[in-house]
Amino acid sequence: MVVDLSILPIGQGVSISPEIAKVIKIIDASGIPYTVTPMGTCLEGGWDPVMQLIKRCHEEVFKNSERVYTKITIDDRKGKTNRLRGKVASLEAKVGKKLP
Amino acid sequence: MVVDLSILPIGQGVSISPEIAKVIKIIDASGIPYTVTPMGTCLEGGWDPVMQLIKRCHEEVFKNSERVYTKITIDDRKGKTNRLRGKVASLEAKVGKKLP
Amino acid sequence: MVVDLSILPIGQGVSISPEIAKVIKIIDASGIPYTVTPMGTCLEGGWDPVMQLIKRCHEEVFKNSERVYTKITIDDRKGKTNRLRGKVASLEAKVGKKLP
Amino acid sequence: MVVDLSILPIGQGVSISPEIAKVIKIIDASGIPYTVTPMGTCLEGGWDPVMQLIKRCHEEVFKNSERVYTKITIDDRKGKTNRLRGKVASLEAKVGKKLP
Repeated sequence: MVVDLSILPIGQGVSISPEIAKVIKIIDASGIPYTVTPMGTCLEGGWDPVMQLIKRCHEEVFKNSERVYTKITIDDRKGKTNRLRGKVASLEAKVGKKLP
Repeated sequence: MVVDLSILPIGQGVSISPEIAKVIKIIDASGIPYTVTPMGTCLEGGWDPVMQLIKRCHEEVFKNSERVYTKITIDDRKGKTNRLRGKVASLEAKVGKKLP
Repeated sequence: MVVDLSILPIGQGVSISPEIAKVIKIIDASGIPYTVTPMGTCLEGGWDPVMQLIKRCHEEVFKNSERVYTKITIDDRKGKTNRLRGKVASLEAKVGKKLP
Repeated sequence: MVVDLSILPIGQGVSISPEIAKVIKIIDASGIPYTVTPMGTCLEGGWDPVMQLIKRCHEEVFKNSERVYTKITIDDRKGKTNRLRGKVASLEAKVGKKLP
C-alpha cells in the first residue's frame, strides 16, 4: 500500500521543520521506500511495517510537543507494487509529458 | 488520542454504506469509544488498540474491494481523556449554546 | 455536497478551542446546515456558498496566527440532499441500532 | 499558500488515472505552480485562484462520475513564498542530504 503521512506538532512554534527533519531521518534509516513532498511523505509497504514506522515517527514528535496531529492516508490496491514511482509514471504516460 | 477514521472502497459502486455498516459493527463490538459523524467515525484510545481496530476494519473492506482508501487523522494531546465528548462540550461552553 | 472542515492554528499554543469557537459562531450565523464533531465540522451545501464560508473561517483564524492548516474533505454525490443527517440514518438502518 | 489536492471518483472502477490525467492537464494549463506526488498534487497560490482551479478540476471529474471525494489540505503561512520547492529544500538542508 501507498501511504501519505504528515505529522504536525501543535503549540511548539510556527516552524516545524526541525521536528519533521527528525521524522525523515527515522524514515530514511528504516529502509522503507519513501518520497518527500511539499506537504508530507509518501511511504510504500505492508500495513504492519508501515504503521510501526509511523508510530515511531509520531512518538518521536510527541516527546517534545504537548499535542501532535498526524494525518495518514492509505491507498491500498490489490496486485500492485512499486507504486510510489508507478502512480506518477502512469499519469505522465497519460498526460504525455514529464510532470513537475 | 482521538482518531477520525474514514474508509472508502473504490470501484465497487456509488453506495458504500453496506461496507461502512460492517465497519461500524466491528467498532461497536470492540468496546472502544466512538462517535459516528456524517463523514467518518471518531475513536478514542491508545495507539495500539485503536490502530489494531482500524487494521481490522480496513482489511474487512479490502476483502470485497480491489482498492480501498483509508484516511486516519490523529489528535494526540498529553494529559487529556474523555475527549470525544469533551472537545464538543468545550466548544459549546465557549460558543454559549448547544451545538448541532 | 457534504464537507468536513477542520482548521488548525499552528504556533499559537496547545489549546485551539477559542479560535475554533469563533469559527463555529461564523458557521452558525451563516445559515448553512452543520454538525460539530470531535474532530471538525461537517457542512452541507453547494460549492460556492460552502467554500465562501470556509474562506471566511480560514481568514478569521489566520488574522491571529502566523500559520494555519485547513483541511477540507468533500463528498459530492448526484441527486442526494439532507445528507448530514441522512448518511448517519442510513448507517443506523443498516447496523440496526441508534449510533453514538 | 500551499495546497495538497486529491480527487477520487467513486463507483467508476478501480483505475482512476484517466480522470486524474484530465485534472493534471487542467492544472498544467492554468499557470499555477504545482508538483505531482504519488498521492495527489500540490499547488501554490492565493486562496481565490487556487480554489477556482480546484473547483474546475472537481467539476470535470464530477461530470463523469456519480460521486466524487475531493480532499484539500491547506498550509497557509505569513510572509512565505516559493514553498513548493522551499519546504523540501529546507528539510534537505536539515537532514543533510538530497531526499527522494
